[in-house]
Amino acid sequence: MKSELSSVKVMVFDTFGTVVDWRGSIIDDLGRWGTSEGVKADWPRLADAWRGRYEPQKERVRRGEISWTNLDELHYESLCSLLPEFGLSDLSESQRMHVNHVWHRLNAWPDSVAGLARLKTRYVIGPLSNGNVALLVNMAKHAGLPWDSVFSCELFQRYKPHPDTYLGVCRLMYASPSEVMMCAAHNYDLRAARSVGLRTAFFPRPSENGPGQTTDLVAEQEWDIVATDLKDLAKQMGT
Amino acid sequence: MKSELSSVKVMVFDTFGTVVDWRGSIIDDLGRWGTSEGVKADWPRLADAWRGRYEPQKERVRRGEISWTNLDELHYESLCSLLPEFGLSDLSESQRMHVNHVWHRLNAWPDSVAGLARLKTRYVIGPLSNGNVALLVNMAKHAGLPWDSVFSCELFQRYKPHPDTYLGVCRLMYASPSEVMMCAAHNYDLRAARSVGLRTAFFPRPSENGPGQTTDLVAEQEWDIVATDLKDLAKQMGT
Repeated sequence: MKSELSSVKVMVFDTFGTVVDWRGSIIDDLGRWGTSEGVKADWPRLADAWRGRYEPQKERVRRGEISWTNLDELHYESLCSLLPEFGLSDLSESQRMHVNHVWHRLNAWPDSVAGLARLKTRYVIGPLSNGNVALLVNMAKHAGLPWDSVFSCELFQRYKPHPDTYLGVCRLMYASPSEVMMCAAHNYDLRAARSVGLRTAFFPRPSENGPGQTTDLVAEQEWDIVATDLKDLAKQMGT
Repeated sequence: MKSELSSVKVMVFDTFGTVVDWRGSIIDDLGRWGTSEGVKADWPRLADAWRGRYEPQKERVRRGEISWTNLDELHYESLCSLLPEFGLSDLSESQRMHVNHVWHRLNAWPDSVAGLARLKTRYVIGPLSNGNVALLVNMAKHAGLPWDSVFSCELFQRYKPHPDTYLGVCRLMYASPSEVMMCAAHNYDLRAARSVGLRTAFFPRPSENGPGQTTDLVAEQEWDIVATDLKDLAKQMGT
């Protein structure tokens, strides 16, 4: 292990895309649900359109256009606005809630659980995700993610990449920024974490956005660790 | 399992005394540390005196006499004020920090880990403790407590038995009060939880305060569950 990383005590992880396969999971979950309920739709296109609303929705909160709104609520608003375009206007309230909770039922990438279990033997591990607490706790139960605790951005009432989110973990854990490592498959997240002094680890998830993904295929800076996946990260961190 | 408890989804636990043996752990940890450092003191009496400052210290925060102060900081203040009485005025700053962190190194009662592991198969489990986040996360690593997430009162900036702490868990987990069960070896904690609608479970820890304990030996109300220990609670909750 690199000697300058020997001070790391806490490792926090982006979740959507980094630890769990949101796109594949949504297509699979809603596809099966649709079959059982007799509901037809273009699920891959819905998954992409829904995720496409994510950034603009968070931006409304960041700009102060709307007050703090957690991710379940933003997802629900986006979903309802998309339903007509997908021929799903007739979904009942309970069906809409079930569909919205698909974000609580995402599956881990094949290497995630094994890598996290190894890292947990030496470090405090947790998500640092824009997902709200209930979403992240339910996701962990569903996917078997062995977190020590859940550091949701909901606790700080700010979305990443706001500095308060990264520094919030440091504050709660009594850790200096150089004792905390942000791990993500997204360069923007690591840029923000590094700018406030955290350590950084990157590994690519080249099919997160489906076939033809063009972003975040490679490390765009010399992050402290560049790994191939979460098991490789565990190895490079000495576990 | 009682049918009215079938709606319970989240089980939260008091920690000091209920899940971990604070008194026995402190005496053991500081006794061994004292021997290795050549520091002598009446550790059992220090443990009791230190814990004795707990309630009055929290009361200062509750009354607004001092602004929100987390438990590590309250413990540190109490410790420093007690050292002269125990002939420990010469402890260095780093020794004081080590002693103060003994609250992060508490051991579980013999039945705690097995009971929690069983409950975790069916329920979301977490501490709802006056301990701060870092303390509770480190305690869980040390004692092997398999929490799904840590619900520290630090997140709500209120100490139990303030209603905001119990209702804070409901809010973060999108759960109604009747879907959340408070589990404790202390009747006062359950009274407060019940008063805002939570389910309640009691099991006694008759040696928490050492020999001659006179309080919390029995359930003082008909709590939803009265168990003998955490394994019995797991059984009564159908796991």
